[in-house]
Amino acid sequence: MSLTRLHNFAVSLDGFGTGEGQSREEPFGHAGERLHLWRNWTPRDRLAHVDGALEEQHNLGIGAEIMGRNKFTHERGPWSDPDWRGWWGDNPPFHTPTFVLTHYPRPPIEMEGGTTFHFIDATPQEALAQAKDAAGDLDVRIGGGATMVRDFLAADLIDYAHITIVPIVLGRGVRLWDGLEGLESRFDTESVTTASGVTHLLMIRKPAEGLQR
Amino acid sequence: MSLTRLHNFAVSLDGFGTGEGQSREEPFGHAGERLHLWRNWTPRDRLAHVDGALEEQHNLGIGAEIMGRNKFTHERGPWSDPDWRGWWGDNPPFHTPTFVLTHYPRPPIEMEGGTTFHFIDATPQEALAQAKDAAGDLDVRIGGGATMVRDFLAADLIDYAHITIVPIVLGRGVRLWDGLEGLESRFDTESVTTASGVTHLLMIRKPAEGLQR
Repeated sequence: MSLTRLHNFAVSLDGFGTGEGQSREEPFGHAGERLHLWRNWTPRDRLAHVDGALEEQHNLGIGAEIMGRNKFTHERGPWSDPDWRGWWGDNPPFHTPTFVLTHYPRPPIEMEGGTTFHFIDATPQEALAQAKDAAGDLDVRIGGGATMVRDFLAADLIDYAHITIVPIVLGRGVRLWDGLEGLESRFDTESVTTASGVTHLLMIRKPAEGLQR
Repeated sequence: MSLTRLHNFAVSLDGFGTGEGQSREEPFGHAGERLHLWRNWTPRDRLAHVDGALEEQHNLGIGAEIMGRNKFTHERGPWSDPDWRGWWGDNPPFHTPTFVLTHYPRPPIEMEGGTTFHFIDATPQEALAQAKDAAGDLDVRIGGGATMVRDFLAADLIDYAHITIVPIVLGRGVRLWDGLEGLESRFDTESVTTASGVTHLLMIRKPAEGLQR
């Protein structure tokens, strides 16, 4: 059975998944790269660190991604820059159909390396149905940012969530945990702290009552 | 040199240090005991668990405590229950002079075991000066709750902070981290996850520039 998975999603101690003031130059606003320094291992060192092993799972067995519009662009409202194709260059690291949630649908953009951006105006449930169709037997990745992750968690659509707590206090930005009181009751969670100082939460949906794993 | 120390202060993933709706029956409001289950080791098992070793430091080398009023009582405003002596029975676990911050000063209450509650209307700086006088060569413990810990961190009065992240989403209550953007820059922090699933942050003030440890 295919899973809906979240990977490498970092939050500050105060629960912000991104900073304030996103712009073309600063996709994470005032947070800059501080939520993602733990991912900066070299390919060789990645093998020798739990951070790296967890990060690599991002790429395994995924057939489609869903992302919020502000992962794709800093723009709000109607599209004004038709040449913008995201922050990732010609060959984005998704390599699958990638559904961008937006209230302003537009034609898809085909990139190198297998990524095609589809711009859809859809509820989380509708978007997930489309992404599952596109993914076939493979899993669907929930790409972020914080608002859409929160929406998908609130709708109970996520089967596995890898959330990384970075020991910084951002003070402002977009909060991940708001409106999710009691979330822990739906997951079995393992926590591990690594040499980089972060704490990884590995949350897997609890088995349904009466089912065996 | 004596230190100002915070121990065993637990927060939820969303950063709440206590729940909503404190009452005589529920000192932590709707959070109940969920932030403190990691402390429930038996004396024997405490020896064999990192949780226990960290918790024990609460008692070592402390000469005075400062606590917020709502650690002492659920009451707000003028004192209405003259018989209330806290939630801890005749022999509270402080065993030192204990300064209770309140806008309604009243005469001290002497308990068994060395605890005397002093009720003072003071700024964090003033309270700390009084507590240091009382502590002599020993350290001062910052007792909580969340509001006073936040105030003392904001005023940069805490030298060591042991903060425990419990993997639950409380959704409401009193937030610890608000107003503390950039706090991490003042501390060296070690993180460790334990068998109970919590993550301990051990934060020690960075050495002053130009000083050697």
